[in-house]
Amino acid sequence: MKIAGIWRRTIDHADKSVTVLDQTELPHQVAWRSFDTLADACEVIRDMVVRGAPLIGATAAWGVALAMRENLDIYTACAKLEATRPTAVNLKWALRQMRDGVKDTAGPDRLARARALAIKICNDDAETCEEIGHHGVGLLRAVFERRGKRNRVNVLTHCNAGWLATVDWGTALAPVYRAHEEGIPVHVWVDETRPRNQGLLTAWELAQHGVPHTVITDNAGGHYMQRGEVDLCIVGTDRTTRTGDVCNKIGTYLKALAAHDNQVPFYVAAPSSSIDWTLSSGGEIPIEERDGDELRKIRGVGIMTSDTAVGNPAFDVTPARLVTAIITERGLCAPGELLSLFPERA
Amino acid sequence: MKIAGIWRRTIDHADKSVTVLDQTELPHQVAWRSFDTLADACEVIRDMVVRGAPLIGATAAWGVALAMRENLDIYTACAKLEATRPTAVNLKWALRQMRDGVKDTAGPDRLARARALAIKICNDDAETCEEIGHHGVGLLRAVFERRGKRNRVNVLTHCNAGWLATVDWGTALAPVYRAHEEGIPVHVWVDETRPRNQGLLTAWELAQHGVPHTVITDNAGGHYMQRGEVDLCIVGTDRTTRTGDVCNKIGTYLKALAAHDNQVPFYVAAPSSSIDWTLSSGGEIPIEERDGDELRKIRGVGIMTSDTAVGNPAFDVTPARLVTAIITERGLCAPGELLSLFPERA
Repeated sequence: MKIAGIWRRTIDHADKSVTVLDQTELPHQVAWRSFDTLADACEVIRDMVVRGAPLIGATAAWGVALAMRENLDIYTACAKLEATRPTAVNLKWALRQMRDGVKDTAGPDRLARARALAIKICNDDAETCEEIGHHGVGLLRAVFERRGKRNRVNVLTHCNAGWLATVDWGTALAPVYRAHEEGIPVHVWVDETRPRNQGLLTAWELAQHGVPHTVITDNAGGHYMQRGEVDLCIVGTDRTTRTGDVCNKIGTYLKALAAHDNQVPFYVAAPSSSIDWTLSSGGEIPIEERDGDELRKIRGVGIMTSDTAVGNPAFDVTPARLVTAIITERGLCAPGELLSLFPERA
Repeated sequence: MKIAGIWRRTIDHADKSVTVLDQTELPHQVAWRSFDTLADACEVIRDMVVRGAPLIGATAAWGVALAMRENLDIYTACAKLEATRPTAVNLKWALRQMRDGVKDTAGPDRLARARALAIKICNDDAETCEEIGHHGVGLLRAVFERRGKRNRVNVLTHCNAGWLATVDWGTALAPVYRAHEEGIPVHVWVDETRPRNQGLLTAWELAQHGVPHTVITDNAGGHYMQRGEVDLCIVGTDRTTRTGDVCNKIGTYLKALAAHDNQVPFYVAAPSSSIDWTLSSGGEIPIEERDGDELRKIRGVGIMTSDTAVGNPAFDVTPARLVTAIITERGLCAPGELLSLFPERA
């Protein structure tokens, strides 16, 4: 997608290094960060320089390639990368691809093979997202046409499941970008997404593309739905079970409840790499507990006394019953019907 | 309640002035602000130096008394105070009390009468809250006893409906303080409450009293309810209709939905002064839209580009069907049964 009018991907590579857009500096500054070791790749993921399940997977793939350049053991490298973030399944998925593709190769071929695979994982992710946009835009078009092509289409999203969360296009925002390119007037309600304020990333990338949007607190979405000001919700996912339970950024469940209560359709954009085919219940997904300082401090300044404890779960699980449909690279389906789109997983 | 071990009220008066605890400085600093004009009283309410529906009412009552000292017209004074915040009905209620009590009196008696009435409104508020605590504590005691007096009782609250929102005791927190004094082990999940972070006020006042508590993002409450870690929710209200629709801080509706979805009882502590007997539907309540800078800036520093719009509704309406019971100074009742406790309002 575009930064200051120029098309870029969030992750790029050179002969000996990988470069990512540093998301901790956004929206204040567009900074790129290059790294060339496995240790740096782990840090980049853990410290959320990159974030978003698909981009985490892509970055981990490049982490493995860098480890091969360092002549490290493939299993050790994958274990280190896997330990950085516990919830997103794309991470495991990408590492499995890399391990399976590299483990039986030795010598100089090993690095070449790892690089080729990492490049493929990145390209596949961009294509997958483009397909999600292609399948999802019909939902927005249908609202617009039902209204006789009057009035903007209002989409609510939580966290950042846009271009910045992927290699390109985004998941939840791919249908929005495509609608915008088709000339459908679309407006996005952007949840602030505490504690890390990823809504600001969503606002920033929508602004880069000229898509109208409004940032609201995480508290406000239900109210706008009650007022009829949300036509549909689209969110991403860090891990979705084969049964359609959706693990995504903390607070997603509350929006799904509000959507259900107000007959607003609630869609989840899920590349198949974020579907965990081994799980049949969202209750089995480990929920990452992050450092309480994410709430306790604002720009490094403490805002609570030491008598106050902090809880900071990073994700929650939205049960399949609250999800209208899942948008995958192969099309839409009811949350319980994922296997009909991916029969090879049965 | 206590500040550094000393019992104080949030609002106090001297011969010629009124003093309030400056809540914009908390939790960083305990500062008191004195004022002696109607204009200052209006500013104190508008700028949220005081906040919380009951305390707004009490402060407005003193604002009228100050206006009488300035020899201003009672109707003009009430109109100015009423314009400060549109949603809380206690403000209107207190101003009506003052107007009705003062309007037919002239000369020096007018000031004396206004002062006496303001004192009574403050004392009544403290008593009302104490009664709410008395009626509400049984809910916590019942959970504790059902468990064979093992394990703490977990209460979730949104915003600040504690001592700081009233003259003393608080509304939603009054049952918590009373339980704590009775030796029932109680722990409070405190919603951060964006954009103004009133959860920090709740954390601060709970800390002053030694009540264990944990601050969480507004996104997290549903997740904790799914995990069985919330026994009951208690929130305050800025205006509740005669039919039991509850207007309260933005985001309350989302917590009520989550409570309903997880069979967690959801209680609203409502002094009768916050019940609007003229309304039969929450849809009729005007919702205050506050300045977008509350989201756009952190400590005065802009965090969004100018391409980003901001929506900032301060309240939402939780429909009566999601409310288990309302706790008033006369006892508990189902949200639709308020008139059974207040038959004089029929």
